[in-house]
Amino acid sequence: MGDPEDKSTQDGGPAEPGRRKLLLAGAGVLAAQLVGGLGSAARAAGAEEGSVAAAQVPITARAYGAASAASPLAQMSIQRRPVGPNDVLLDVLYCGICHSDIHTARNEWASSMPTQYPCVPGHEIIGRVQAVGRAVTKFKVGDIGGVGCMVNSCGTCENCLADREQNCLVGATFTYNSPSAPALGGHTFGGYSDKVVVPEHFVIRIPPGVDLAAMAPLLCAGVTTFSPMQHWRLAAGQRVGVIGLGGLGHVAVKLAVARRADVTVFTTSQGKLAHARRLGARQVVLWPDPAAMKALVNQFDLLISTVPQAYPMRPFVELLKLDATLVNVGAMDPLQDIIGMDLVMGRKSVAGSVIGGIAETQEVIDYCASRHIKADIELIRPGDINRAYDRVMNKDVRFRFVIDMASAKA
Amino acid sequence: MGDPEDKSTQDGGPAEPGRRKLLLAGAGVLAAQLVGGLGSAARAAGAEEGSVAAAQVPITARAYGAASAASPLAQMSIQRRPVGPNDVLLDVLYCGICHSDIHTARNEWASSMPTQYPCVPGHEIIGRVQAVGRAVTKFKVGDIGGVGCMVNSCGTCENCLADREQNCLVGATFTYNSPSAPALGGHTFGGYSDKVVVPEHFVIRIPPGVDLAAMAPLLCAGVTTFSPMQHWRLAAGQRVGVIGLGGLGHVAVKLAVARRADVTVFTTSQGKLAHARRLGARQVVLWPDPAAMKALVNQFDLLISTVPQAYPMRPFVELLKLDATLVNVGAMDPLQDIIGMDLVMGRKSVAGSVIGGIAETQEVIDYCASRHIKADIELIRPGDINRAYDRVMNKDVRFRFVIDMASAKA
Repeated sequence: MGDPEDKSTQDGGPAEPGRRKLLLAGAGVLAAQLVGGLGSAARAAGAEEGSVAAAQVPITARAYGAASAASPLAQMSIQRRPVGPNDVLLDVLYCGICHSDIHTARNEWASSMPTQYPCVPGHEIIGRVQAVGRAVTKFKVGDIGGVGCMVNSCGTCENCLADREQNCLVGATFTYNSPSAPALGGHTFGGYSDKVVVPEHFVIRIPPGVDLAAMAPLLCAGVTTFSPMQHWRLAAGQRVGVIGLGGLGHVAVKLAVARRADVTVFTTSQGKLAHARRLGARQVVLWPDPAAMKALVNQFDLLISTVPQAYPMRPFVELLKLDATLVNVGAMDPLQDIIGMDLVMGRKSVAGSVIGGIAETQEVIDYCASRHIKADIELIRPGDINRAYDRVMNKDVRFRFVIDMASAKA
Repeated sequence: MGDPEDKSTQDGGPAEPGRRKLLLAGAGVLAAQLVGGLGSAARAAGAEEGSVAAAQVPITARAYGAASAASPLAQMSIQRRPVGPNDVLLDVLYCGICHSDIHTARNEWASSMPTQYPCVPGHEIIGRVQAVGRAVTKFKVGDIGGVGCMVNSCGTCENCLADREQNCLVGATFTYNSPSAPALGGHTFGGYSDKVVVPEHFVIRIPPGVDLAAMAPLLCAGVTTFSPMQHWRLAAGQRVGVIGLGGLGHVAVKLAVARRADVTVFTTSQGKLAHARRLGARQVVLWPDPAAMKALVNQFDLLISTVPQAYPMRPFVELLKLDATLVNVGAMDPLQDIIGMDLVMGRKSVAGSVIGGIAETQEVIDYCASRHIKADIELIRPGDINRAYDRVMNKDVRFRFVIDMASAKA
């Protein structure tokens, strides 16, 4: 895991009907044999004949992508696979702009996850179901579905069976920049696109009555910050620090406040101080502020670092209580300034966490819908993507850009 | 915590009678007032009049210490405080040589814990009780006691009350190189000495019938490796890796084998391969061995790193299962090669752990005594300390040097 070059190549073809369901039902060897057969049959059939988009040929979609690490994003045409028996075709309505999109479009994670071009980012997708495969039970045409960071996994390994598809032992297929069928471009294309075809298992049900555009970011930023709060059991009254107040950070604050935790925000942006309080933080520290930091030493039950690159972490590790954890959900590069003695003396931990499984993604969407939690967004048109990227880099967004994909059709 | 410069100065005087007991009994405000009085009285009294070593004057002890970071250790005379009401005077029989002794004698932790000179190391002490203070109930003259890494703490903070004296909020007094009374040298002197005076709370009961010399290292190396196995709940059948096969590592292997864990040893010393198997490891990896490491990716429930300095940790983090932890108990310097993505992708943790509290130190001693677990030692005379230091640095010890302090009297 964590090194896509070691993954087995995903076929990128239509999802195999009922494969995961059969295995989840524990049908064992017989099921495995059936699955092999069905999988092969599905691959041979290529597409679902009775569906709205039942053509055996790929679906052409309009997308916005980068031709190289140095290129701005531009409109392009891509191919989506035909709708297979377990697939859902979404007419994309909204797609959030995650910092990972920028890292990937610009090949900033080249050493661990080199970008394949053209690169079509986007993994915070809300769409209307336009077609469903024969075996689909979770959605019907006209429903609203969401797609986060993953669009496939093996469905049979111990991690997939434990609802941790992001840790699929074969290698999860991520929404963009994962291996795909050569005929479809050789790698997956994300949600900066008017259409996407995804196995129903990887499509999240979006409850009725929610603000669809503001729900989109929760499919990545929401589950990314919700999951560590669940795993490290952030409880009411506990003190949590959110480091960085961007797309992830502002959702983290809302989720922590919803748990009635005592939230402190650490930001480098003077302009975000008032926002942090409005979001519900009891305390805001304009970093660096040595006096404020010193007063907070040994105070925190949990720190969630949402900063999208490495920075010296020692001043934050010092804020942890005994046995407490700093969870990094943003930086993928080598962590800086982690001192052995600091961890040793307080039995402290530095950990990482990445998104969550499909069940947990559904959970955070349902959790947020029932509590009226949504992202603070700025809606843009596809033509504004490049400017939005620049503004993200300048920390000039409150707090997530969401592309109104339907606006391009008008 | 972790920065002795921030600590309040310890008075280094006689322990206050009954202070900790009163507070442990939860007597609250009244107790706190009593304690204040008793503490002051005890400080004023200076020593216990009725004890064997009841002189109001300090006790002169023969010790072996370093006059500077560049000096070899040499015999010197030091002062021990008079035996206070709660104190135990030990006639030191054995003292292990821990790598921390060398780090400290040579001022290798200057940035975080600068060494005060002269430096008398030693925190794996076994001795015979030569005198006890009036209020001592745990020991009588002639008993065997052990002293590990700490000789005092405030006894009243939340961490002390939770049996985590090593995390005393006032600052634990470590066995050497902690603040002490100016008249006693200004800083504590360790167990490379024929006598030591320690509050009974910090003296461990040594069960009868054990090999005293081989028990000494368990007072540091034992609790240091036992504590993380307890905290991270290493269970029978789980896969644990021990990184580094020295004084700590070889005890870690014995303790993990006693739990019926599946033990793999990682060592850079060809000469230690057979030793690792003899100690009970099922697998031994001669590091670096890329093929062997690759075969072990995602296999480990727990890794315990006993290497006494930083090294590139990435290849080991990759060996952790999802949610598993690499616990560093050896390196105090900045950790190397901790990659954000590696932690993120597997929700892995890098943590630290330092010794254990007094109750846990007693627990590991009792645990080892009942299971006939002891350190593999090479007994030396005080005159051999400098040569032993050189041999430790050359990894030429199987596996712990223990100084036979009594041999110097012969």
